Amino acid sequence: MIGVFDSGLGGLTVVKEIIRLMPTARILYFGDTAHLPYGEKSEEIIKKYTLAACNFLKKRKVKIIVIACHSASSVALDYVKSKISLPVIGVIETGVKTALKKTKNKRIGVIGTRITIKSGAYERVFKNYDKEIEIIARATPLLVPLVEEGWINHPITKEILKIYLEPLKEEEIDTLLLGCTHYPLLKKTIEEIFRNKITIVDSAEELAKSIVDFFDYRKIKRIKGELIIYLTDIPPEFERVARNFLGFSPDKIMRVALQE
Amino acid sequence: MIGVFDSGLGGLTVVKEIIRLMPTARILYFGDTAHLPYGEKSEEIIKKYTLAACNFLKKRKVKIIVIACHSASSVALDYVKSKISLPVIGVIETGVKTALKKTKNKRIGVIGTRITIKSGAYERVFKNYDKEIEIIARATPLLVPLVEEGWINHPITKEILKIYLEPLKEEEIDTLLLGCTHYPLLKKTIEEIFRNKITIVDSAEELAKSIVDFFDYRKIKRIKGELIIYLTDIPPEFERVARNFLGFSPDKIMRVALQE
Repeated sequence: MIGVFDSGLGGLTVVKEIIRLMPTARILYFGDTAHLPYGEKSEEIIKKYTLAACNFLKKRKVKIIVIACHSASSVALDYVKSKISLPVIGVIETGVKTALKKTKNKRIGVIGTRITIKSGAYERVFKNYDKEIEIIARATPLLVPLVEEGWINHPITKEILKIYLEPLKEEEIDTLLLGCTHYPLLKKTIEEIFRNKITIVDSAEELAKSIVDFFDYRKIKRIKGELIIYLTDIPPEFERVARNFLGFSPDKIMRVALQE
Repeated sequence: MIGVFDSGLGGLTVVKEIIRLMPTARILYFGDTAHLPYGEKSEEIIKKYTLAACNFLKKRKVKIIVIACHSASSVALDYVKSKISLPVIGVIETGVKTALKKTKNKRIGVIGTRITIKSGAYERVFKNYDKEIEIIARATPLLVPLVEEGWINHPITKEILKIYLEPLKEEEIDTLLLGCTHYPLLKKTIEEIFRNKITIVDSAEELAKSIVDFFDYRKIKRIKGELIIYLTDIPPEFERVARNFLGFSPDKIMRVALQE
């Protein structure tokens, strides 16, 4: 049983990938929709919420916890690992490893929420592996609201992306890491802006692969997978947004309170 | 002592107006920054948070509570009034009354967050006063993130406003009600889009006036006013955003937990 935690619904992109690779997986998803978005909040409160959510999942007997939220992975991963006796995987490390395999000129761009970029978590992990890597990081806080508004292919979104990505283009990055669950939905537009000249790393895909590696898939005999979604709030646009990320409409949704 | 509640920092525009009209006022401000934004959350959870915040202010002996958040006023005002034995003023009623005084053709536009518009609260209050009024309402969820990003005078913001306001223009409204604390910062751009041909109603100003009317100002003998700000989270960009709304940097800020 796999526990997936995210501040909202964006982590469902990771769920989608896990289901694609391992259709018999049992997944408990916890979305802290009552407190989202984490991206503009403080480190202290993100740690508190993330630990509470992971404890919730632990009580429900998951074997591993995936923190699909980049903001939470950036500032709360080590904290949660020190408090919880379960394997906890964040989204930063897998993204970094993939980006390092792809880059040739060692100039990598990272985009994310304000807290993700401010934390410097990506730089730290990159430098752990290779001190020569140049990281050009930029906070892009308008992208989440644009995706949630459904303006995925809207000309305005392309214009905003151009403004945000211009400095990264000037710095001649050859690899761009998408440091937020919402950004893979903008992948096509980002590719157009860079005229397909760079490699885009989508951490959701990579994260899902590392989960599947964790389990010995052949031993899993269940015929049918299962997905249960726990949310701290059921927002008005839940159906539409969930379908955007997941590719289908989930049926088992429960509202729960977070024990802070 | 006046209690002002908002989901975040936007309600500081109301505080700014109160201080301008009544410099000796003592104001306790409660911003639920740990849970913001309310605009895309459910009615149920907004009620819960709003009541908890009002109870917090009541315990600190305020004489009146102002709900400066349009989303909370839209869905939680009656609920809070039924639970709390204190005068509670929402932001809807004052805005509606002013708009009714200004309109000549009885076609009024309202923009706000998704929950404010979806709740139909503005329509209901307008129709209570005048059944003939035509309300053209539109949810404009990108405006809050744009203001928080600091893109107040950015050409992109103007383009997005044009897209959002086009249908209201076509409907030939003569009055536009700004149904969110953040929108007054975009007033100038909105006026440009309508070529100064419509009246824009900024509820913060009107709300502040009705608070001042509530008190018998002459009886207040205090020399110096006071502003204490309680927040459920101190977000990373707090200083900049607070100054944007308030016009100065507040000095008494306390982080508190909300008893849910």
